[in-house]
Amino acid sequence: MKALMKTSMAEGLTMVEVPEPGEPGPTEVLIRVKTASICGSDVHIFRWDSWAQSRIKPPLIIGHEFSGIVERVGEAVQTVKVGDYVACETHIPCLSCVQCRTNRMHVCRNMKILGVDTNGAFAEYVKVPQTVVWKLSKEIDPIFASVMEPFGNAVHTALVEDLTGKVVLISGVGPIGAMAIQVAKVSGAALVIASEIRDYRKALALKNGADVVIDPTREDLEDRVMRLTEGNGVDVFLEMSGSVDALKQGLKVTTNGGTVAILGLYGKEISFNVDELITFKALKVFGITGRKMFETWYIADRLLKHKRIDLSKVVTHVISFDEWEYGFELMMKGECGKVVMKF
Amino acid sequence: MKALMKTSMAEGLTMVEVPEPGEPGPTEVLIRVKTASICGSDVHIFRWDSWAQSRIKPPLIIGHEFSGIVERVGEAVQTVKVGDYVACETHIPCLSCVQCRTNRMHVCRNMKILGVDTNGAFAEYVKVPQTVVWKLSKEIDPIFASVMEPFGNAVHTALVEDLTGKVVLISGVGPIGAMAIQVAKVSGAALVIASEIRDYRKALALKNGADVVIDPTREDLEDRVMRLTEGNGVDVFLEMSGSVDALKQGLKVTTNGGTVAILGLYGKEISFNVDELITFKALKVFGITGRKMFETWYIADRLLKHKRIDLSKVVTHVISFDEWEYGFELMMKGECGKVVMKF
Amino acid sequence: MKALMKTSMAEGLTMVEVPEPGEPGPTEVLIRVKTASICGSDVHIFRWDSWAQSRIKPPLIIGHEFSGIVERVGEAVQTVKVGDYVACETHIPCLSCVQCRTNRMHVCRNMKILGVDTNGAFAEYVKVPQTVVWKLSKEIDPIFASVMEPFGNAVHTALVEDLTGKVVLISGVGPIGAMAIQVAKVSGAALVIASEIRDYRKALALKNGADVVIDPTREDLEDRVMRLTEGNGVDVFLEMSGSVDALKQGLKVTTNGGTVAILGLYGKEISFNVDELITFKALKVFGITGRKMFETWYIADRLLKHKRIDLSKVVTHVISFDEWEYGFELMMKGECGKVVMKF
Amino acid sequence: MKALMKTSMAEGLTMVEVPEPGEPGPTEVLIRVKTASICGSDVHIFRWDSWAQSRIKPPLIIGHEFSGIVERVGEAVQTVKVGDYVACETHIPCLSCVQCRTNRMHVCRNMKILGVDTNGAFAEYVKVPQTVVWKLSKEIDPIFASVMEPFGNAVHTALVEDLTGKVVLISGVGPIGAMAIQVAKVSGAALVIASEIRDYRKALALKNGADVVIDPTREDLEDRVMRLTEGNGVDVFLEMSGSVDALKQGLKVTTNGGTVAILGLYGKEISFNVDELITFKALKVFGITGRKMFETWYIADRLLKHKRIDLSKVVTHVISFDEWEYGFELMMKGECGKVVMKF
Repeated sequence: MKALMKTSMAEGLTMVEVPEPGEPGPTEVLIRVKTASICGSDVHIFRWDSWAQSRIKPPLIIGHEFSGIVERVGEAVQTVKVGDYVACETHIPCLSCVQCRTNRMHVCRNMKILGVDTNGAFAEYVKVPQTVVWKLSKEIDPIFASVMEPFGNAVHTALVEDLTGKVVLISGVGPIGAMAIQVAKVSGAALVIASEIRDYRKALALKNGADVVIDPTREDLEDRVMRLTEGNGVDVFLEMSGSVDALKQGLKVTTNGGTVAILGLYGKEISFNVDELITFKALKVFGITGRKMFETWYIADRLLKHKRIDLSKVVTHVISFDEWEYGFELMMKGECGKVVMKF
Repeated sequence: MKALMKTSMAEGLTMVEVPEPGEPGPTEVLIRVKTASICGSDVHIFRWDSWAQSRIKPPLIIGHEFSGIVERVGEAVQTVKVGDYVACETHIPCLSCVQCRTNRMHVCRNMKILGVDTNGAFAEYVKVPQTVVWKLSKEIDPIFASVMEPFGNAVHTALVEDLTGKVVLISGVGPIGAMAIQVAKVSGAALVIASEIRDYRKALALKNGADVVIDPTREDLEDRVMRLTEGNGVDVFLEMSGSVDALKQGLKVTTNGGTVAILGLYGKEISFNVDELITFKALKVFGITGRKMFETWYIADRLLKHKRIDLSKVVTHVISFDEWEYGFELMMKGECGKVVMKF
Repeated sequence: MKALMKTSMAEGLTMVEVPEPGEPGPTEVLIRVKTASICGSDVHIFRWDSWAQSRIKPPLIIGHEFSGIVERVGEAVQTVKVGDYVACETHIPCLSCVQCRTNRMHVCRNMKILGVDTNGAFAEYVKVPQTVVWKLSKEIDPIFASVMEPFGNAVHTALVEDLTGKVVLISGVGPIGAMAIQVAKVSGAALVIASEIRDYRKALALKNGADVVIDPTREDLEDRVMRLTEGNGVDVFLEMSGSVDALKQGLKVTTNGGTVAILGLYGKEISFNVDELITFKALKVFGITGRKMFETWYIADRLLKHKRIDLSKVVTHVISFDEWEYGFELMMKGECGKVVMKF
Repeated sequence: MKALMKTSMAEGLTMVEVPEPGEPGPTEVLIRVKTASICGSDVHIFRWDSWAQSRIKPPLIIGHEFSGIVERVGEAVQTVKVGDYVACETHIPCLSCVQCRTNRMHVCRNMKILGVDTNGAFAEYVKVPQTVVWKLSKEIDPIFASVMEPFGNAVHTALVEDLTGKVVLISGVGPIGAMAIQVAKVSGAALVIASEIRDYRKALALKNGADVVIDPTREDLEDRVMRLTEGNGVDVFLEMSGSVDALKQGLKVTTNGGTVAILGLYGKEISFNVDELITFKALKVFGITGRKMFETWYIADRLLKHKRIDLSKVVTHVISFDEWEYGFELMMKGECGKVVMKF
């Protein structure tokens, strides 16, 4: 089969011909890939940056955002059957640790990541444990099903609290931020304020329904937010930028007793005043990673099935698997939403 | 001032000329009424039914759904000032019981109801304790501000759980049910199913955005719900009809582990199988009365301020205070949503 | 191996010699039983009452409360290994339904019960799916490990709400009620009131730490509770009796806005005033069945490991497997706590 | 009356004779002080450190932890009456801001602190708004009632999550940490680990029931915690030390998906790796300040009333008001728990 592989410890990827993954074990599922999308972490692996060098062991088929059809199942598989239309969680849990046994398998202490620690989905076939397979509603277009995994990040983050009637600030409007704007709007947020500094992404924020977009390099975010909220600040702050300034600004404008979800990564130790920005304000701060398995998937699936969310505002490019180099170029330029490859 | 009063222990109401309520006490607020709407309980008082006979002590000015302008405030009032545009909570709490001191003042053990236990708002002026006054966002039309109290019932009931991506059944589509449909839709419900048997109200359900309206006298509700939900049933069931059959059907089609909010009143002992309909299903059942003071009001206000809810689909008649008899006639016929009187 | 079996559709059980369960499938675990305890439902099966007749298909090895040692594991088993000391959840989930995939597998829609729908644990060996196996802390005595399953019911029910500083009423003091008293006390309840009418069980309540035991046939429960709580009523009510009167009394004395957990079964439609006992009081009512898989087990295990709970106050008889008839006699007389059989 | 006052902008305090506070306003309550205890912030004011210089405007009667008897009430006071035995919340809320109206008045945006922004309780009489008065259960000794306010901090922090069966780490064992140890134990924590570096406080930790006390300057806290918890880490971490190292260590050993409450103050910007210590671990971090008004008070009162907590293990010194200088000396040496003054 064709597969996009990290073949050596250097920049780049190679489209190779490799054997199919082989017969699924008793609890494994073999999936024929229909669509797959490119994640920022795939670009890190392409570039062979320090994170990739420390984590990736070539040869490895990369890719983890995808949809497909179940081709074969192991003898003990209970969750899906041949022919099912599925997407997959990329967090592969051990099923044995306390986290796995107490509804937190998305932060399993022995977790493996699909396409990072194991062969991934940028290939005609991928083999995964049954635990990570989600049976999709048939009403969901494969183009969008491919994006279920990052969409799940947006849902998981945005649903940190019931947003009905709340004022929400979202900092950082990459594809996940853009989807979070849609989720916040559809979840009843009274006002969704986006903070973003890049022009392409400011436009993406508006396209996805932000009521207000603030560029903190051009205006005083705190002043603007306070004027928009009669001095109350925002009820909920979703930090998706990975910018320390955005984190500090957001904490500052979150109303006393408010809620904060942090999905953004800073890549280093960061410095801020916890007393003033969290403790005295009695903020609730939630670190967000992955997706609740599978509460988040259930909600994400239903939102797409019933057309409450329009992912065509985020999927900006649909290409064929053979055009993968063009897809990675788009991602590296950064002027795109999600790039989906058809198989 | 003009006031609509229960003057004697008999059917009917009388428009009378009475003195203004007099100077507010230290923690009281005198409000000039701008709009007021008619509640079902006002109709009970008009009709002098058994509930009214047991509760109401004439002479009494009735009415409790209203908006107005603060005319005078007592010397110790902190929450509002003269000229503020306000609506009022109708549950007047004692401020001393455990409920009042632990964020449950809506179920105060010594509660009085405005316009039921004390002189109400169908008058040019009404005097209330500062605790129950809510300062409205100026963007809210007084016609709709009058309806904040029953709208608050809808918000309080619907927000029993975060509805994003959930399938919701609402049984009983009077004005509060209709508003709950809107709240559920705007809060991200994937699918809102209404159950209703009267034609006027079935139309009201559709107008307010129900995805599906089921008349359980004409089709098998359980069968239909199961087909709509791939056999899962509904995630959340809001019982607003006061019909025992509706309660039983709703519990039956709520998915295992699901959530139920009961606002409807049955008026008597009712009989059902708690083992099968609640316990074995691990349902969470919430009795709903009044509004959280004032979390519900904050959310309700923001939803209206930011135009996320359109109460023109529920307020079907706007009349003058002098036309009150016409308003009560409409209510008694039942072919209306909310009837608002302008002062 | 020896096994206690329902061999025919009639009263009684038979100790038989049967083949061992055979090699575990890929995701199955074979367990050598060390201890097992007798549940009320085992007595129902012995007696061959209407419930048993409708549910049980002989021949069947019964029994579901037990501890043991892992003897063999299937090739795909991840959660335990040979030699592990384990107990088992008795709710065998399908792993595929919405409940199973969204952290509610204890109310799986396709659930099977160990020893009821499948061969159980009153035998030298039992074979179960890996999903239901819980690895026990080694500090837990096998005598008590056998009781983990009903103890889990007590934990699941009592933890319906954080009990620290709360006043708790528990109606019905069988073994699970007695364990719930201990859990409530150890969880910080300010005052634990038990309601019970049988002398043996009133003594059991006191032995397990109830602060007050009320016999509602001898004194006015409502009056007594109100005197004990300065008129507030109880914060949390755990209904474990299956008595309609107890349910009604408990709802009545639960404070407005309080919390109710129902584990008791009534066996039929029951009649009560939902308006007055739930809705106007804004009660939160939770149907409880089984145990959260495996949050409840984690908590139950830690409570026993760290000696916070003393199950010797509930396990009143320890016998050998061969003395099973004596154990069932004790259970049928009702004058016992838990009866544990050693293998 | 006698009052302990900051009379000038310099170190020290002066016992002065001043007029009584005068007639209470309509919603005010005049209280005759029975007992008062010295808080760390009183010591800051004595010392006239930079925080005190920036906040305190002499002349000011200081002191905010106290109990007393209601002497006179304003005409509109509803919550207490003359002769009631009371303690007071020190956070004086405005009652008007969004926080005050949505059950977060402990983080009121216009908050004043008793004895910091207004005349306090180190005096024979103190006058407060009715909102902050809590009527105490008569079973609570005035010596301990004086400590309700810091005890409330301990309760508020420890109850960040239901602790039954959980492993809890508490860093920093001053009087509040010591009380939190008791609260955690009484709330069902399976294992309470304290982290503390000072000998006096290590002893205080053991006296108050810590299962394990770790001095991180003498042993490897992470290693020890992991051995105590089979590699799981702690479920709940209460940071009460104000030490950045303690914060980092605690976050590190908190299990994935665990809960953190921060009451400690760092007094400056601090630096740590949010990605690794919060986000990837999916921790829930709660900033804690003050007490929930008045859920925390209700729980704290019930715990003391029903003798579930023994504050004699924390109140190490009881002196007369005239011995105030000795009390401050004790506090400055740091070798004490709470110091209570009798009036």
